[in-house]
Amino acid sequence: MPANLAFMELALQLATENVVSGAGGPFGTVVVKDGAVLATGANSVTVANDPTAHAEVVAIRNACQQLGSFQLDGCEIYTSCEPCPMCLGAIYWARPAAVYYANTHVDAANAGFDDSFIYTELPLPPEQRKLPMHHIEIANADECFQRWKQSQKKVEY
Amino acid sequence: MPANLAFMELALQLATENVVSGAGGPFGTVVVKDGAVLATGANSVTVANDPTAHAEVVAIRNACQQLGSFQLDGCEIYTSCEPCPMCLGAIYWARPAAVYYANTHVDAANAGFDDSFIYTELPLPPEQRKLPMHHIEIANADECFQRWKQSQKKVEY
Repeated sequence: MPANLAFMELALQLATENVVSGAGGPFGTVVVKDGAVLATGANSVTVANDPTAHAEVVAIRNACQQLGSFQLDGCEIYTSCEPCPMCLGAIYWARPAAVYYANTHVDAANAGFDDSFIYTELPLPPEQRKLPMHHIEIANADECFQRWKQSQKKVEY
Repeated sequence: MPANLAFMELALQLATENVVSGAGGPFGTVVVKDGAVLATGANSVTVANDPTAHAEVVAIRNACQQLGSFQLDGCEIYTSCEPCPMCLGAIYWARPAAVYYANTHVDAANAGFDDSFIYTELPLPPEQRKLPMHHIEIANADECFQRWKQSQKKVEY
């Protein structure tokens, strides 16, 4: 399905309104299904005391509640800015059909939102990251995985 | 502060209990502050219809609610398994002091939780990713950023 600029205009409007109201950062996201708005989200990190409440994550959560599903099958995500690594990860787990973005990570960095540090850290082995990250070996650590493999109740995702 | 194995045992116990109860995937996380458990989380993707509800994200959200803050200053995260890219991004935004993990991404992949696809996709330019991702140029897309720079109400994060 070709991009519908009206949905992007809405995502950008949410981003601007979020700043004007003082609710949060300059980011907005719209999830579209079957050519209609399914859910929206705006950055609410500071107002909700939730560092994961980026616009994309908020919109994905809202859209999944609307669908009663943990997957965004056949949905499109229109987001005001190129997603950060956390949001990109969330998008991959939600499995939408496509993503559209307006501002780029360079635009975001120029406005003080520089996620290049995180993009640089992620591919490194844990022990080489600047955030101290330690592997602890524990006997039977894999019991949870063994139980999962055997479980009759599990819902795969 | 040296790692405290009791917190990792708790994270692993949460992971196993989550499978046994049928609530979700085999992952648990504990957030520690000043040597005590501040909050915990277990994977609840399928039960909550929330693809972002990985154990680390749930625990970070719970810990931030406890603190009334969007940052985990001075906290340690004990997680049953090496974080996926989404959770790693969330951890960087939450800014804890350290992260400890027991199972590795190889252990997770052997149990059917393979996040190597996402790790491979993230460093690619958007147009080269397998998930269709398109830049849309829109006039005045940066109005939200300009407003942010001028805002007197903004709370930086």
